[in-house]
Amino acid sequence: MKKLKVVTLGGGSGYTPELIDGFIRRHKELPVSEYWLVDIEAGKEKLEIVGALAQRMVKKAGIAMTVHLTTRLDEALAGADFVTTQIRVGQLAARIQDEKIPLRYGVLGQETTGPGGFMKAQRTIPVLLDLCQEMEKYCPDAWLINFTNPAGIVTEALAKHSPIRSLGICSGANSMMRDIAGAYGVEREDVYARVMGLNHLIFADQITVKGKELTDDFIEKLAQGVGANQLNNIPDVGLPPDFIRALKLYPLSYLKYFYLDREMVEHEREDLERGVGTRGEQSLAIEKSLFDLYRDPTLCEKPAALSARGGALYSDTACSIISSIYNNKREIHVVNTPNQGSTPDLPDDAVIETNSMIDCNGAHPLAYGRLPVAVKGLIQSVKSFEELTVEAAITGNQHTALLALAAHPLVPSVEIAEKILRDYLAANRDFLPQYTL
Amino acid sequence: MKKLKVVTLGGGSGYTPELIDGFIRRHKELPVSEYWLVDIEAGKEKLEIVGALAQRMVKKAGIAMTVHLTTRLDEALAGADFVTTQIRVGQLAARIQDEKIPLRYGVLGQETTGPGGFMKAQRTIPVLLDLCQEMEKYCPDAWLINFTNPAGIVTEALAKHSPIRSLGICSGANSMMRDIAGAYGVEREDVYARVMGLNHLIFADQITVKGKELTDDFIEKLAQGVGANQLNNIPDVGLPPDFIRALKLYPLSYLKYFYLDREMVEHEREDLERGVGTRGEQSLAIEKSLFDLYRDPTLCEKPAALSARGGALYSDTACSIISSIYNNKREIHVVNTPNQGSTPDLPDDAVIETNSMIDCNGAHPLAYGRLPVAVKGLIQSVKSFEELTVEAAITGNQHTALLALAAHPLVPSVEIAEKILRDYLAANRDFLPQYTL
Amino acid sequence: MKKLKVVTLGGGSGYTPELIDGFIRRHKELPVSEYWLVDIEAGKEKLEIVGALAQRMVKKAGIAMTVHLTTRLDEALAGADFVTTQIRVGQLAARIQDEKIPLRYGVLGQETTGPGGFMKAQRTIPVLLDLCQEMEKYCPDAWLINFTNPAGIVTEALAKHSPIRSLGICSGANSMMRDIAGAYGVEREDVYARVMGLNHLIFADQITVKGKELTDDFIEKLAQGVGANQLNNIPDVGLPPDFIRALKLYPLSYLKYFYLDREMVEHEREDLERGVGTRGEQSLAIEKSLFDLYRDPTLCEKPAALSARGGALYSDTACSIISSIYNNKREIHVVNTPNQGSTPDLPDDAVIETNSMIDCNGAHPLAYGRLPVAVKGLIQSVKSFEELTVEAAITGNQHTALLALAAHPLVPSVEIAEKILRDYLAANRDFLPQYTL
Amino acid sequence: MKKLKVVTLGGGSGYTPELIDGFIRRHKELPVSEYWLVDIEAGKEKLEIVGALAQRMVKKAGIAMTVHLTTRLDEALAGADFVTTQIRVGQLAARIQDEKIPLRYGVLGQETTGPGGFMKAQRTIPVLLDLCQEMEKYCPDAWLINFTNPAGIVTEALAKHSPIRSLGICSGANSMMRDIAGAYGVEREDVYARVMGLNHLIFADQITVKGKELTDDFIEKLAQGVGANQLNNIPDVGLPPDFIRALKLYPLSYLKYFYLDREMVEHEREDLERGVGTRGEQSLAIEKSLFDLYRDPTLCEKPAALSARGGALYSDTACSIISSIYNNKREIHVVNTPNQGSTPDLPDDAVIETNSMIDCNGAHPLAYGRLPVAVKGLIQSVKSFEELTVEAAITGNQHTALLALAAHPLVPSVEIAEKILRDYLAANRDFLPQYTL
Repeated sequence: MKKLKVVTLGGGSGYTPELIDGFIRRHKELPVSEYWLVDIEAGKEKLEIVGALAQRMVKKAGIAMTVHLTTRLDEALAGADFVTTQIRVGQLAARIQDEKIPLRYGVLGQETTGPGGFMKAQRTIPVLLDLCQEMEKYCPDAWLINFTNPAGIVTEALAKHSPIRSLGICSGANSMMRDIAGAYGVEREDVYARVMGLNHLIFADQITVKGKELTDDFIEKLAQGVGANQLNNIPDVGLPPDFIRALKLYPLSYLKYFYLDREMVEHEREDLERGVGTRGEQSLAIEKSLFDLYRDPTLCEKPAALSARGGALYSDTACSIISSIYNNKREIHVVNTPNQGSTPDLPDDAVIETNSMIDCNGAHPLAYGRLPVAVKGLIQSVKSFEELTVEAAITGNQHTALLALAAHPLVPSVEIAEKILRDYLAANRDFLPQYTL
Repeated sequence: MKKLKVVTLGGGSGYTPELIDGFIRRHKELPVSEYWLVDIEAGKEKLEIVGALAQRMVKKAGIAMTVHLTTRLDEALAGADFVTTQIRVGQLAARIQDEKIPLRYGVLGQETTGPGGFMKAQRTIPVLLDLCQEMEKYCPDAWLINFTNPAGIVTEALAKHSPIRSLGICSGANSMMRDIAGAYGVEREDVYARVMGLNHLIFADQITVKGKELTDDFIEKLAQGVGANQLNNIPDVGLPPDFIRALKLYPLSYLKYFYLDREMVEHEREDLERGVGTRGEQSLAIEKSLFDLYRDPTLCEKPAALSARGGALYSDTACSIISSIYNNKREIHVVNTPNQGSTPDLPDDAVIETNSMIDCNGAHPLAYGRLPVAVKGLIQSVKSFEELTVEAAITGNQHTALLALAAHPLVPSVEIAEKILRDYLAANRDFLPQYTL
Repeated sequence: MKKLKVVTLGGGSGYTPELIDGFIRRHKELPVSEYWLVDIEAGKEKLEIVGALAQRMVKKAGIAMTVHLTTRLDEALAGADFVTTQIRVGQLAARIQDEKIPLRYGVLGQETTGPGGFMKAQRTIPVLLDLCQEMEKYCPDAWLINFTNPAGIVTEALAKHSPIRSLGICSGANSMMRDIAGAYGVEREDVYARVMGLNHLIFADQITVKGKELTDDFIEKLAQGVGANQLNNIPDVGLPPDFIRALKLYPLSYLKYFYLDREMVEHEREDLERGVGTRGEQSLAIEKSLFDLYRDPTLCEKPAALSARGGALYSDTACSIISSIYNNKREIHVVNTPNQGSTPDLPDDAVIETNSMIDCNGAHPLAYGRLPVAVKGLIQSVKSFEELTVEAAITGNQHTALLALAAHPLVPSVEIAEKILRDYLAANRDFLPQYTL
Repeated sequence: MKKLKVVTLGGGSGYTPELIDGFIRRHKELPVSEYWLVDIEAGKEKLEIVGALAQRMVKKAGIAMTVHLTTRLDEALAGADFVTTQIRVGQLAARIQDEKIPLRYGVLGQETTGPGGFMKAQRTIPVLLDLCQEMEKYCPDAWLINFTNPAGIVTEALAKHSPIRSLGICSGANSMMRDIAGAYGVEREDVYARVMGLNHLIFADQITVKGKELTDDFIEKLAQGVGANQLNNIPDVGLPPDFIRALKLYPLSYLKYFYLDREMVEHEREDLERGVGTRGEQSLAIEKSLFDLYRDPTLCEKPAALSARGGALYSDTACSIISSIYNNKREIHVVNTPNQGSTPDLPDDAVIETNSMIDCNGAHPLAYGRLPVAVKGLIQSVKSFEELTVEAAITGNQHTALLALAAHPLVPSVEIAEKILRDYLAANRDFLPQYTL
């Protein structure tokens, strides 16, 4: 069996032990022989802490995998088979700004939904397109598996602007399946559903549990407050039961940012006033305590505390998709991939998040047909925002950037869009080579 | 030349003298011989006042037209060629409720945009579909020219649910052409532009003045505050100049409700606090003073004060379109008509407002192609709201009604949608035969 | 595990032993407990011969399955889980007429391609829609697995005109995979390809062998005459090598009827003159010899000679698809199912033949995107023929029937279409209840 | 009023006097002050004969227009407003080859339909794209009005591969309107109909005569043999009456080549055997006699014999469209222009022939919606042929050329396509710079 070289960009991330754990557990079907963790100079300390833990984990597992740490992209990429990304340009400090600036104007401050997603995309897309150019040189046939948020927007930029084969991954759909499984007391593998939408904006129907259609039943459970999807990092605010019944679809918990916009913004402002800090500030604290654990030279496995950051399913999602490509399994997974007509209600080249057959040629979305009218407009308007966001990230055109922010359904006025943009560009000056500032 | 019978439903409206004036001025090309004004029992007094004025106007003009007043639909419709509608189910009292209820929750209170358009559609659509059934009996080949707001939604309901041939009319596009003409000191006839969107949500480009392309020039004028479209009934709040330059399209002034939502709601709330009253309350006062004028038995022409209500262009728009059908002129007018592929970004059966060739077979929209991404999402999300609004108005299904309100981009939360719906249904109990309340 | 009841309409077909053999071999994963063979009164003798063989086969296998023979649809359908169809209305005598009548006018005489497909559809669709109505009564949740040709047209009629869940099956794609496997000396399971088109009009690309992309390699093999797909019942005429290279797709061997129309017709005429008989006449002889074998009371397995009829792969195709539904496997199979946007170049409700994920909710086609322009026009024109053929079969409208035949790309003139239709209707008088003849 | 400079490429064509006549008659609304006739060196003699006649015609008319003759493109194009083309690369000799080569193999030999259209496009497109490059230098804002056949294919090549604004013109639709007018004894201006399709492959419905819907009535007339469109250069073979009734559309007479392929080919072969010559050979004789007339120095107007060539309506069609652009008239004309969504059944960038509003921004097709299924497949398959033909003409790729010919519905086999291509390329060696031969 061919040996596998995997590279992770942003290797110093606190999530890395999850990934390592996944590769260790799947080593039989996915025989990774070289695993390269890459990070930038500024992230070297974290890279070394995480890398040492990774090496201890591999050693304890007793498998034939070597873990390499480097800040040099060229040696990491040479001959790679899969490259995964989990970078955070500007680190958590930038995220905290992304969150706080919109809140100044009474607008949602969140990492991926609302203006925050726009800003993160502007910082991230140029870096990942640079990575793609390096991949064209050093590993043109490798797959780029993008975890980096906003995963849908970033994947659309990659699909439109690079020949490198890529797909975007998020654990959202898996968390929904897990919650359905929980509601019925079965295993996650016993659950299947049809998912459609954009990253962090997905809806499920055709829910089957052990081969039995239970969509209506689960919708009623949801309406009654049982089995609601609670991504760890989203405050517990509920949708009105009659709205869920009317919708007849199971919305990812992120939909609260759209369906309960006013309440969520209010919640965020209260948190700020109470000194709880934004989600980014909380993450900073969690990260610190995680790295304190990682430093312990006796730790040889991923610590339980890691799942508290809400990414526990990422590892499973990523490793099983990589395995489906590598082993040409033709399994169905929910990924971010170009629409290609899956729904005629979105452009053919728009990246969507939907059930796709994964084989050695990548992701083949299942045809979905027309979007339900109840969610069509929301999905379409966010997709227009995303198209404009990608275009702005590529061109650095401030008019396009303004149109993007103004097009977001959570931005209540063009004047406010203009103010947020002004503050964002000023605060991110160092990370925006494409803009003339 | 064949004699023409025209019927106006809601004949007691204060706008009727405009229409009469239009028919008088075009009598040569549009030889209306019988003009029937119809109204309900409750509107009889106004019908008689307006009708008497109409008869005096016709007499003074010395043309061969008889004006009939009636509350009986059957005798009015028998053998009619054109039926126009300008009804207001529940009268201005209902409008004022439509405006005030959303404002309770900090949501735009406006006649056609936002929740107000939803509520007006629920009251209006059943009445107009009843009219269509009568037309099938008494004048199955007549054209229904719908002025009644929300004109786009109502026309979509008619197109989807009745075989009667109809099209929807609004003076918005004409007001934009007039304002362009004003900016260049030319006549309205010298101006042409391509318009696309939904009723009260349209954008223009390909602006030509005397056959010369001046789109960029006019956009810059707009950005500099010259030539802005000011529909009389919209407060003067401006879009940021850079947003206009980025947009590269000329938006109808109603777009302020979307692009400056927060500011417009603030403005409405201040008006309420200052006791200025909603736009509906102001209209009540204007209407009273208009009818005081109409009562004057020496008045034989439409009074100048009439144009203050913002509908001065309706008459021209309506009469010229009716003439283009009657005389098979193949002129280009902006009307509300089913998309039929004009833009692939909206459903084929969605009613849009766009340039259409008008001949004896009705409206044939020009192919527009893809919507500009800067406005695509907004138009699509409002269209989803409109689709749901039509479905709710037909079925009286409260779940669908909730989905409709929740889908509107100006409603900031599903909880608020639920409250507005509850209050709306309670307040409109008498006008909603399709709902089980 | 739930017991399974399977019903086969046209149970007296010579193919039935293949199916029985398939169910026996898969009994573990597909525990058919009752298998009902149904046929019409006229087919009773054949039903009894085949049924007795089936019972002997089951007995020898020693599994818990009972085989029932009946001419009563109601008792067969009651509580059924799957219904398969392999009927031939008018039997082989009708097929022979289907073949000979077009040849009178120099037009292809073939069972499913060309006018023959039209005529078979006119006879078959009413019978299968009657079956569906019975299924609504006796087994509304059962799946209808349609083998009956023309499988694509018939499945489109079922999907458009019945609520019964159905999908259409053909062994064509499997035969292509088998031939690819043969060319590389691997197992059929090692081969996967993407298939798109209409029944008997499919093209493959993205050919992978053991997970390796070999499309270009296989196309060159084809051009050089290696590995060509030779469905047993198609004379061996080759496509020009440069055409195959230009096409860059692997066409099903049936494509010869389109790409070498003149040569194939010539071939058929020579056969007739040489007294070889049409394919239908040859089948009559094969069938006779098959039934001679089946009558042998010592025969307890399907005879090797059966595969000579060209349907050897049917059993595998059918059983594995039924199992994928029953066991909710989410495997990828090539089936006939409504397009639903899989390719925007065909109507959403058009039945296509393409790779689909099969689970307990049925077939979910993979999104394919735009058709390659090299084959787009051919596929679209045959689909128009199919749409008209379905409409004619439902309505019995002779104008529509004429339009259908005239729309077929292999019919060289409307005058000839008219003559073929006249002769066809005269010859099939007994099988066309929907027509007024 | 701005003076107008018009240039005609292929000015030595026998049709030129028609155009001159048109410009003279419309001089008031279309004040052409300079009219340049351009031809190649080999056409100089004809250019001088036609040019002298043109100058005599203008002199007699006494209008302010100068007629210039030149073989230099640069001086002709400098500052031009409109450029029309009526070139014939390889002259009638090439046309005669286009006709005779397919007939060798029993395939239609015709100037624009069938393989002939393919071959003419290969010779013509490179020349016209060269012209466009010159226009970019000397008159980048001029309109290119393309008469050159195959008009639809050529216009698609221009639209896809040049920024010069162009539209394609054919008199076919006008001839249909004229024939309708003839059938009702009214003027051509009294007739209007909706037309859809591709050049020389159009269908009409919504036929109105003096504002009255008469589609069904005219279809019945057609079925009864009255009012059939008889383009002069098409032999009189009739469609079966029941087919016309079934179609419910009025097909251009060129449709006989598709609907009566076998009969038309038979007819052509008989003509060849009888020594009548192909249509190209007949044209050669007509052209000779026309130029004999043109040489007469006393002739000062277009001779009556000119209309015998079947292009009598070209002049009216062209001049009225040029005037609609120049005067921003917004009239409806049938032209060849990119689809842009007019029908979703063809690609957005496919050139179609349909009713379009013509203003100073060019052609705006009316939205047509879905194509009638009776003609959809034929139109789509010819469009695929056209797409491939354009691609082959641009790239000179012989594989693409083979796919194009093989895709044509009138080519009965890929082997024959290969032979025709081989013979065509050999015979046209001198006119195919894009091919490596």
